[in-house]
Amino acid sequence: MAVYTDVAADELAAYLAQYDLGDLLSYKGIAEGVENSNFLLHTSKGSFILTLYEKRVAKGDLPFFLGLMTHLAEHGIICPQPVKNRRGEALGELVGRPTAIITFLEGVWPRKPNATHCAGVGGALAKMHLAGRDFAMSRENALSVAGWRPLFDAAASRADEVQPGLRDFLAAELDHLESGVWPTNLPDGVIHADLFPDNAFFLGDKLSGIIDFTFACHDILAYDVAICLNAWCFEADHSFNVTKARAFLSAYGKERKLSEAEQDALPLLARGAAIRFLLTRLVDWLNVPPGALVRPKDPLEYVRKLRFHQSVRSVRDYGLAAGLVA
Amino acid sequence: MAVYTDVAADELAAYLAQYDLGDLLSYKGIAEGVENSNFLLHTSKGSFILTLYEKRVAKGDLPFFLGLMTHLAEHGIICPQPVKNRRGEALGELVGRPTAIITFLEGVWPRKPNATHCAGVGGALAKMHLAGRDFAMSRENALSVAGWRPLFDAAASRADEVQPGLRDFLAAELDHLESGVWPTNLPDGVIHADLFPDNAFFLGDKLSGIIDFTFACHDILAYDVAICLNAWCFEADHSFNVTKARAFLSAYGKERKLSEAEQDALPLLARGAAIRFLLTRLVDWLNVPPGALVRPKDPLEYVRKLRFHQSVRSVRDYGLAAGLVA
Repeated sequence: MAVYTDVAADELAAYLAQYDLGDLLSYKGIAEGVENSNFLLHTSKGSFILTLYEKRVAKGDLPFFLGLMTHLAEHGIICPQPVKNRRGEALGELVGRPTAIITFLEGVWPRKPNATHCAGVGGALAKMHLAGRDFAMSRENALSVAGWRPLFDAAASRADEVQPGLRDFLAAELDHLESGVWPTNLPDGVIHADLFPDNAFFLGDKLSGIIDFTFACHDILAYDVAICLNAWCFEADHSFNVTKARAFLSAYGKERKLSEAEQDALPLLARGAAIRFLLTRLVDWLNVPPGALVRPKDPLEYVRKLRFHQSVRSVRDYGLAAGLVA
Repeated sequence: MAVYTDVAADELAAYLAQYDLGDLLSYKGIAEGVENSNFLLHTSKGSFILTLYEKRVAKGDLPFFLGLMTHLAEHGIICPQPVKNRRGEALGELVGRPTAIITFLEGVWPRKPNATHCAGVGGALAKMHLAGRDFAMSRENALSVAGWRPLFDAAASRADEVQPGLRDFLAAELDHLESGVWPTNLPDGVIHADLFPDNAFFLGDKLSGIIDFTFACHDILAYDVAICLNAWCFEADHSFNVTKARAFLSAYGKERKLSEAEQDALPLLARGAAIRFLLTRLVDWLNVPPGALVRPKDPLEYVRKLRFHQSVRSVRDYGLAAGLVA
């Protein structure tokens, strides 16, 4: 949950006066997103989300995120749309923070995703990858393989406080992933990079849109697939659900076929995705600021997931049936 | 901010199926209220607030709160309305918590109240007092004079950690308020008991409604006035703003005249109101649970306010001009 910065009604009304959004009726700080302060606005023109970007988000990246949402919507992907002010700008400033208003997307995110949800998100991810192909802007993934060592260094000395042996476990895995095995010639493009269940909205069983592009970047497309395997296909007890994975991968493959090279790389990419979330969660876990209003997520969930991916022998262990995808 | 209990989409949809509220479109945990978990719902029938009452609220009190909102609305007070399910019940259960749905009230609460806001809330408070006269249910005020000593006892041994000398200051004030000076024959009735700025909504300068009746009870009406003097008429630096107090009291008096006895009692009632919020804040301050997502409010703000009220000689110090109120 996150509301780091409150906004006074008169400040907000003055800000909204730059937009053609009608009168402010109400605004509520909402408990979604952990990086920024988000408010649900009601105006006489409808519902909108107001986001104040806090310091963890680089201001220079905001045009990429906002431009991507516009581009994707123009290519048939349902996602929030940046609202431009009367000067045609999508980015403003409020309470000293870079600020944007986006359209409000109805839908609920699945707290307990089932195979139908996994299929929905698989299809949407593939369509997003296709729609992103001709997006002109680019943003490097700061949290891909080259970004993990600094996170490890920041957390290593205290990793064993969280679980005995964790430091050595992470060091060995990082050594392996940095040993030249990470793929360099797989299809790349715009990836969401954070398509967890709380970023996929459904109405009934039907996906109604995807949100939160604040980690979107340019990287290996199959790495995004690997992130979703981690995010959607494990049970609450951290066991892998092959039915959900099959539903996810099959739906993805119907929109965009995974090449044989991508399939072969999937177990390794899934290990990378697991260590990426393990490391950021570990750093957050060890660095909860005093008075924090955000409860950090458990890094150990990803130790279990990483161990699973280490045990995978081929993409068939993810439930991929021959002929469905490649 | 408060979302203590999350609700899964399918659980919520099943709960909503008992109501005639159409289809669930979205729900967001909102950062308002510190006692309960609140969600803003969008359904095909409109916007609603879903509240899961957490353990600090006694389940037996809920019919009083919900009945009061219905009663007040029937008497012209704009406040949220409980939505009844198809069996005619306003109270249900979700995730093991007593749960209610109320209508969503548009409006924004003033982060920096001005004299116009104070006048708006003064008029609304008086109208609420009049509208509550024939409300049949009753609820004792657990946080009136008899309720303060237990709070003091719970916090006394550690009070000086918060401010040196605080224990003796509170003990002396409590001794005074318990010495038989507390009024017993002033007009009583239903009071809001927590009408702080975040519980009063405005559209522009006009009050659009009052919310959050979870402290409402039966007590001295002028005590509610005294609570508002504390809540609305001090600046951020804790100085008393007599212009705001005059606006508040004058607007109250236009709807319901304060008797001479009520006016005379106001300084004492204001001391009582100040120590009530001082003590509950102090207890919360000293008892932040590990992992709490709520930042406790500063009790020392009310030490300053209490000292001010101790220095008041008569109601004229609150800006009350002769003839306007009594």
